[in-house]
Amino acid sequence: MHIGLVGLGKMGANMRTRLRAAGIEVTGFDRNPDVTDVPSLDALVEALPAGERLVWVMVPSGAITDGVVRELAGLLVPGDLVIDGGNSYYQDDAPHAALLAEHGVGFLDAGVSGGVWGLQNGYGLMVGGEAALVERAMPVFDALRPEGPREEGFVHAGAVGAGHFAKMVHNGIEYGLMQAYAEGFELLAAKDLVTDVHGTFKAWSRGTVVRSWLLDLLVQALEEDPKLAAIDDWVEDSGEGRWTVDEAIDLAVPAPVISAALFARFASRQGESPAMKAVAALRQQFGGHAVRPAP
Amino acid sequence: MHIGLVGLGKMGANMRTRLRAAGIEVTGFDRNPDVTDVPSLDALVEALPAGERLVWVMVPSGAITDGVVRELAGLLVPGDLVIDGGNSYYQDDAPHAALLAEHGVGFLDAGVSGGVWGLQNGYGLMVGGEAALVERAMPVFDALRPEGPREEGFVHAGAVGAGHFAKMVHNGIEYGLMQAYAEGFELLAAKDLVTDVHGTFKAWSRGTVVRSWLLDLLVQALEEDPKLAAIDDWVEDSGEGRWTVDEAIDLAVPAPVISAALFARFASRQGESPAMKAVAALRQQFGGHAVRPAP
Amino acid sequence: MHIGLVGLGKMGANMRTRLRAAGIEVTGFDRNPDVTDVPSLDALVEALPAGERLVWVMVPSGAITDGVVRELAGLLVPGDLVIDGGNSYYQDDAPHAALLAEHGVGFLDAGVSGGVWGLQNGYGLMVGGEAALVERAMPVFDALRPEGPREEGFVHAGAVGAGHFAKMVHNGIEYGLMQAYAEGFELLAAKDLVTDVHGTFKAWSRGTVVRSWLLDLLVQALEEDPKLAAIDDWVEDSGEGRWTVDEAIDLAVPAPVISAALFARFASRQGESPAMKAVAALRQQFGGHAVRPAP
Amino acid sequence: MHIGLVGLGKMGANMRTRLRAAGIEVTGFDRNPDVTDVPSLDALVEALPAGERLVWVMVPSGAITDGVVRELAGLLVPGDLVIDGGNSYYQDDAPHAALLAEHGVGFLDAGVSGGVWGLQNGYGLMVGGEAALVERAMPVFDALRPEGPREEGFVHAGAVGAGHFAKMVHNGIEYGLMQAYAEGFELLAAKDLVTDVHGTFKAWSRGTVVRSWLLDLLVQALEEDPKLAAIDDWVEDSGEGRWTVDEAIDLAVPAPVISAALFARFASRQGESPAMKAVAALRQQFGGHAVRPAP
Repeated sequence: MHIGLVGLGKMGANMRTRLRAAGIEVTGFDRNPDVTDVPSLDALVEALPAGERLVWVMVPSGAITDGVVRELAGLLVPGDLVIDGGNSYYQDDAPHAALLAEHGVGFLDAGVSGGVWGLQNGYGLMVGGEAALVERAMPVFDALRPEGPREEGFVHAGAVGAGHFAKMVHNGIEYGLMQAYAEGFELLAAKDLVTDVHGTFKAWSRGTVVRSWLLDLLVQALEEDPKLAAIDDWVEDSGEGRWTVDEAIDLAVPAPVISAALFARFASRQGESPAMKAVAALRQQFGGHAVRPAP
Repeated sequence: MHIGLVGLGKMGANMRTRLRAAGIEVTGFDRNPDVTDVPSLDALVEALPAGERLVWVMVPSGAITDGVVRELAGLLVPGDLVIDGGNSYYQDDAPHAALLAEHGVGFLDAGVSGGVWGLQNGYGLMVGGEAALVERAMPVFDALRPEGPREEGFVHAGAVGAGHFAKMVHNGIEYGLMQAYAEGFELLAAKDLVTDVHGTFKAWSRGTVVRSWLLDLLVQALEEDPKLAAIDDWVEDSGEGRWTVDEAIDLAVPAPVISAALFARFASRQGESPAMKAVAALRQQFGGHAVRPAP
Repeated sequence: MHIGLVGLGKMGANMRTRLRAAGIEVTGFDRNPDVTDVPSLDALVEALPAGERLVWVMVPSGAITDGVVRELAGLLVPGDLVIDGGNSYYQDDAPHAALLAEHGVGFLDAGVSGGVWGLQNGYGLMVGGEAALVERAMPVFDALRPEGPREEGFVHAGAVGAGHFAKMVHNGIEYGLMQAYAEGFELLAAKDLVTDVHGTFKAWSRGTVVRSWLLDLLVQALEEDPKLAAIDDWVEDSGEGRWTVDEAIDLAVPAPVISAALFARFASRQGESPAMKAVAALRQQFGGHAVRPAP
Repeated sequence: MHIGLVGLGKMGANMRTRLRAAGIEVTGFDRNPDVTDVPSLDALVEALPAGERLVWVMVPSGAITDGVVRELAGLLVPGDLVIDGGNSYYQDDAPHAALLAEHGVGFLDAGVSGGVWGLQNGYGLMVGGEAALVERAMPVFDALRPEGPREEGFVHAGAVGAGHFAKMVHNGIEYGLMQAYAEGFELLAAKDLVTDVHGTFKAWSRGTVVRSWLLDLLVQALEEDPKLAAIDDWVEDSGEGRWTVDEAIDLAVPAPVISAALFARFASRQGESPAMKAVAALRQQFGGHAVRPAP
């Protein structure tokens, strides 16, 4: 099998390696000449068999993914297939599928989890689209997913968009899980009685209810830096946490934990909190409570 | 009527002024010789008619209130009455009532709201204890409470402890109200489209659903400093917000808003957040995401 | 002055009454023949002076407001002015302003607060758009807003959209305020020690930090039904609470209180919670904890 | 080695089995004559070598644990050792240690995680107390903990109380983790686009960031009942979630996720929500919004 792969960043490059190791021929294209296999998207398309092409797109979501899909719509021919494996917003998928369909080109959306460890462990895959197209791309999915039964690392979650929707929810859950461990870390670290915080997390690695891969990673981080002294308390958020809460609001699903985790990240990046200035101002007004002057 | 008042801090001194203005004779005692009327608690007790004394205690809650009540138990005689008007934890009230009862001394707990504005506006009062004692102290309550119908500024909320319990819940609500306005302030301030944040809050003063005394105070704070530039985002919390959430947990009452307001205050005082360091560390571990080095 | 008013529902009809009482001539149109003054939107436009018309739109936000604005764009002439006083999403305002501008017609957006009480108390007004248009419509705003200084019931908050944005935040705050009182109510009601919940809320009416118009309304509700026994715990949400949280997410503003209030409403309408079924299932799996069979 | 084990409920009986399988002689006592090895606590004490006894207490926390410890204090002799392996509140540990120390008896507190699966997988252990006593009991800990490196299933977390404190935080984290998965489940289940919810969770079993033991259990629950139709949305809470939030409040540690998870359980058990009745009442008062009559 010979496929195209657009986007050779951290994720894309690792996926190319894993696919090749599984015996799949991969022609990769990236704007970065140091990593690309071919000089242009045209060249990538040329390298593949017309009408049977499978092009996996692995570029930043939003405008860049949109641009690549539009370009591909102009280059591909009936029978070809595009898979968007990036972290696209699931509502972008149906328009992309419709655009490609105008050219007789198929479309699948694939949510991909696993981060930098996916190269070695395999990637969890959530796919949306028509069953026949999913079947056709299965050798690729099988090469990317972890060892073991297919259904433990791969799902055909539904129609176009379902793959990215599932990935979005996966990431929303991830926000909540991380914040739960983080609150626990802060509680242990705040308590003088507990003299071995790293050891406590490590002791949860086996047998306990809270054991998980994220726990293992936190143990590893604490192994390197037991008080996380070298790390700033500044946490970026990707779009997917926000989309998850937006979706919860749209579906009228209560999401107190996922939203709390998201808001904690917002707060972590604020130099100062306008809201808390307002609370301080109110206390001063009614109670004559002292406020701290701004630094 | 002639009463004793122990504690002449910001609140106590204002209450003495208001009581005297209402024609009640007040002998005040405070450890601060600049404000006290008598040199000692003994002297305060001596100044009042034995067996008919009413001593209002207005000192910091916890150990100090406890100490004063214990001292008074040793000085007062059957028929006397102690009112704890401080922000005591409601579970301290029953032991105090029991201790004083051993000496034939009555006890009422009074939650007092109004802050520095109470001198002028009167204080909202929530009282716990026996009806006969409440009746006996009514002239004092009437002098302290705002003008208008008694039931709009005074309640006999229940048995001993009910006054402080009601005040605790009052303060819990207050936390939630303040945080709601504060989040609204931050939203308006974050939006370039809105060019008059202070004016917007001021326009809510009349006719709107959100009008309140706290709103008026925020308008005033914004009048003085439209961006609250001079105020630090550092907010103290008194015991009562914590007790409210503890009580919610004890009663199995969901309190997401009051607890969120409390946690926002905790976070406002953290130089750095250990929890968010842990989240940053996790993201670095699984995604190779860059972390900021600690400053 | 003679203006047009489209939409004579609960809000619109009250506003017509208040405007007329202030000496402003109002021609109202509604699809309901029982309340309308003229048989059609055309007739309403005909009744007003061409090139100087002021048409206030007070219909449900979304498709219906959009339809009315589009119709008006076809009927009005340069110099006319449309004011959208409904609860429109602020991002709908700029497109409406642009559409009307193509016909030389001006546009203002006006957030209106006050509910059914506005007829009597006046309405709090938040307006977005060009200053000259705001000035021109001022007699209408003055008639609608509460007695007292203009700036305590009216604000020109910014460019087109700022009025509805401010109203959206107003409603978001309102969600938080209501939930704070509601949690306090539940805490008082859950505590046997407190024997007069209604009286406690009533006693907060004057002098306290938590006094507000919403408090007064809750006191009134408790006066009629001290345990709220006749009212179901089922709470609708309008779009504006959702938009506020969406906006918080977009602006990266932490909004734990407003979102908690919104989620509590979602939960109030669920017959059963899929999330809590999942938690129950998990506890059964790991702990052998008994679950309740679904009813 | 020969030890005593008090309490042969679900956990205790499994632990006895696991200990015996590891070659440790166990004499168990339980009030239930069907499962006990000896007829009384006295008999259990008699069966062990005086001055070298190790008695593991595995009974419900609170009064029952307290009673057993008090009884043991009267029966044991200098050199004996008591380990409380139940879910005791960590602040109960120091008094128990002090009481036993008066009789020359040592004390360790051990948090035990693993639920019904511990028999097979081993139990995660968090221990507090003196190092020499921990060392002495190590054969027991080694028998109970999972296979693999000791530090991945066992920690000496600190002085007396640290074991139960760590277990309390473990359970607090567990609340947050479960709620995060549960919110994700509800989001997937609410979205028609996703046609295979069970398959999606199953596909997260390998390779993904959210893989964990709890995830595996949820997959298993969904395998048996894909919509959890047979399970009621009613979730009990043990003391440890409450204690964790109480502790967060005491330490001024923000815990929005753990508290949200706890409050969701409270809400799950309410037939009706007094708070939401209050919100409904308020909306009716100010907006004339219809309320549903209580059923």
